[in-house]
Amino acid sequence: MSERTATTDADSPPTETTFHCELPADRLRTALDTADALVDECRLRFDESGIRIAAADPATVALIDLRIDASAFDTYRTAEGRFGLNLERLLDVLGVGDPGTTVELTLEPETRRLAVELGELSYTLALLDPETVRAPPDRSEMEYELPGRAAVPSDTLSRGASASAMVGDHVGVGFDPDDGTLFLRADGDTDEASLTVPGADLDRFDPADVRSLYSLDYLESMLRAIPSGTAVDLGVGSETPIQLSFDVDDGVAVDYLLAPRRRVE
Amino acid sequence: MSERTATTDADSPPTETTFHCELPADRLRTALDTADALVDECRLRFDESGIRIAAADPATVALIDLRIDASAFDTYRTAEGRFGLNLERLLDVLGVGDPGTTVELTLEPETRRLAVELGELSYTLALLDPETVRAPPDRSEMEYELPGRAAVPSDTLSRGASASAMVGDHVGVGFDPDDGTLFLRADGDTDEASLTVPGADLDRFDPADVRSLYSLDYLESMLRAIPSGTAVDLGVGSETPIQLSFDVDDGVAVDYLLAPRRRVE
Amino acid sequence: MSERTATTDADSPPTETTFHCELPADRLRTALDTADALVDECRLRFDESGIRIAAADPATVALIDLRIDASAFDTYRTAEGRFGLNLERLLDVLGVGDPGTTVELTLEPETRRLAVELGELSYTLALLDPETVRAPPDRSEMEYELPGRAAVPSDTLSRGASASAMVGDHVGVGFDPDDGTLFLRADGDTDEASLTVPGADLDRFDPADVRSLYSLDYLESMLRAIPSGTAVDLGVGSETPIQLSFDVDDGVAVDYLLAPRRRVE
Repeated sequence: MSERTATTDADSPPTETTFHCELPADRLRTALDTADALVDECRLRFDESGIRIAAADPATVALIDLRIDASAFDTYRTAEGRFGLNLERLLDVLGVGDPGTTVELTLEPETRRLAVELGELSYTLALLDPETVRAPPDRSEMEYELPGRAAVPSDTLSRGASASAMVGDHVGVGFDPDDGTLFLRADGDTDEASLTVPGADLDRFDPADVRSLYSLDYLESMLRAIPSGTAVDLGVGSETPIQLSFDVDDGVAVDYLLAPRRRVE
Repeated sequence: MSERTATTDADSPPTETTFHCELPADRLRTALDTADALVDECRLRFDESGIRIAAADPATVALIDLRIDASAFDTYRTAEGRFGLNLERLLDVLGVGDPGTTVELTLEPETRRLAVELGELSYTLALLDPETVRAPPDRSEMEYELPGRAAVPSDTLSRGASASAMVGDHVGVGFDPDDGTLFLRADGDTDEASLTVPGADLDRFDPADVRSLYSLDYLESMLRAIPSGTAVDLGVGSETPIQLSFDVDDGVAVDYLLAPRRRVE
Repeated sequence: MSERTATTDADSPPTETTFHCELPADRLRTALDTADALVDECRLRFDESGIRIAAADPATVALIDLRIDASAFDTYRTAEGRFGLNLERLLDVLGVGDPGTTVELTLEPETRRLAVELGELSYTLALLDPETVRAPPDRSEMEYELPGRAAVPSDTLSRGASASAMVGDHVGVGFDPDDGTLFLRADGDTDEASLTVPGADLDRFDPADVRSLYSLDYLESMLRAIPSGTAVDLGVGSETPIQLSFDVDDGVAVDYLLAPRRRVE
């Protein structure tokens, strides 16, 4: 789905890896929030090109693929490797820091811990054995035809999801090629909600006659983690996952995939 | 109580009515919040002069009469009629919209639904049969002598009510004509709270030797729904309801009536 | 501990005392918040030099000594005496007032009540018999050797306490004289948190080879009550209480004392 190829799993034991990087704490926090929307623990892989977190929620309904490019760091010196990370805990630590601080992360391979330096604050975070953290599905098995494409502001999507959540648990997302619109639509027992975005208002609009139905629980969790004002590239098919791709910052790219519920009649 | 006369109930079936209007969503929200303080569902009547919601809380202790004048709308094209409205739901929908948006309401008489257009968002709200919504008391039976009158800032009233709520469940409201003051007063087992406003500080002050006791639960609900900075016209009698009249916006007028508890000794 | 000497307890009955003072309500609120962090009720002593609240939490783990100097008041006319105060209730009353209001406190000795005037608001607060309020420990019995001293921003201490609270219930506070640093440090089962402040960054830094362990519950309560941006004078010993001394405003001085848990190994 992404233009970037996945790094192969490094089988070198973590004890031999080097991992040291620095970046603004707010940038790291915003990036990790997108993964925290789906999982509490994850595997983090790193190589010279940057950091990557791929993870699926426990029900394997939603998938995240988060890449922080080496260019997004102030300092980035790593070999190749991976570790298991308690995301919640690291986010808690970042939340304590002075706003605007730079965070420094260093892997201590002997003790399997991550040293987090945040101004005057030091935190040593026990890492998880990556083998004990649920592996993400292989993305090569998750390449879908997503013929409908559009770039939509995250706040627009959030409004559509919130309105849909008033009438039910699911939302249909699709295109109306004749009208030249993208829609989010929910039908309840008595009420109906829909968001209709004219393609003419969007920077990118490649409609197709497709639509699928998604769980609002998941979609709203994802949308809450996307910073306000973000342009989200949507990919939609028929009875396929929906893909939401966006940059949360320069060099910080996210793909969300959310499995469909059933065909919208 | 209001200078305006009540419109007679339109017995024409809703299927023949026309109702289409547009106004700033924030204006509608602020107006409906005042009714939502007392009821979840209400009857909404409309005619060429505007919209009117009259409702009593389930215990018939408090009454609201909300009028949105035709002049408060950007567009207002209606015949005469009424429908039953789930206030909470409509307020939820308004809350999802982009701030500053105009909302467009259209009655769909065939389906007994209200189409709510809020920018890119469309919501179709099932209406209630007005006969199933509790009728408000007839206001012509609720004309009281309220000889004490004053115009008081809503924030001042809120402070008096909050302080009174620290000592008990009721507040006495009245005038001290000798001192030339309006008061809110609560006596608890050990503590006492009072707010005393000199008439000289008020734009309108027509004191009378009256006082009554009111439930703070209701009074605080009403006061929370009044926007900060609003001038409230108080009408007070002895063992009578208290009336709070105010405009929440140009062309949006509210009367609250709250029944007394018992004579203040 | 404080340079000021404690006033001797006035045994004159409260019925003969005079107590009348005025000060900005926000100043009083901020001052009383520091005592409210430890106790709901307290004894308040007053004499011509000012007001003093000394109190210990119910478990006698933490102590506060709050002094509001006569110079911190706009008006201050008192004899010498004391009364028991429901702190929570007075803080609630202050919270209702118009921001920026001056509050006027007058003891009504005949009725053992405190008249609180806050703009148009009057509140009469029943006082407590000081004999029924738990007496604070005698501070003369609480003079400790606290050889390590430093002036630290309250926000820095709060960050150190918050990070420590992620790994456990206690935090070690001490100095590393060789490194010329002050530290807060917590060791959990898997993680470690520490805050290390170079003495060179501090206005006052008199290190000693001392450290003690403290309950984070108490320390965090205290730190939450200290306004952001306050310089806190720390006094630390070995197996001794920690002292936090600071001014919340001109003429408003606080000493907190927190008993140690056990020797840090």
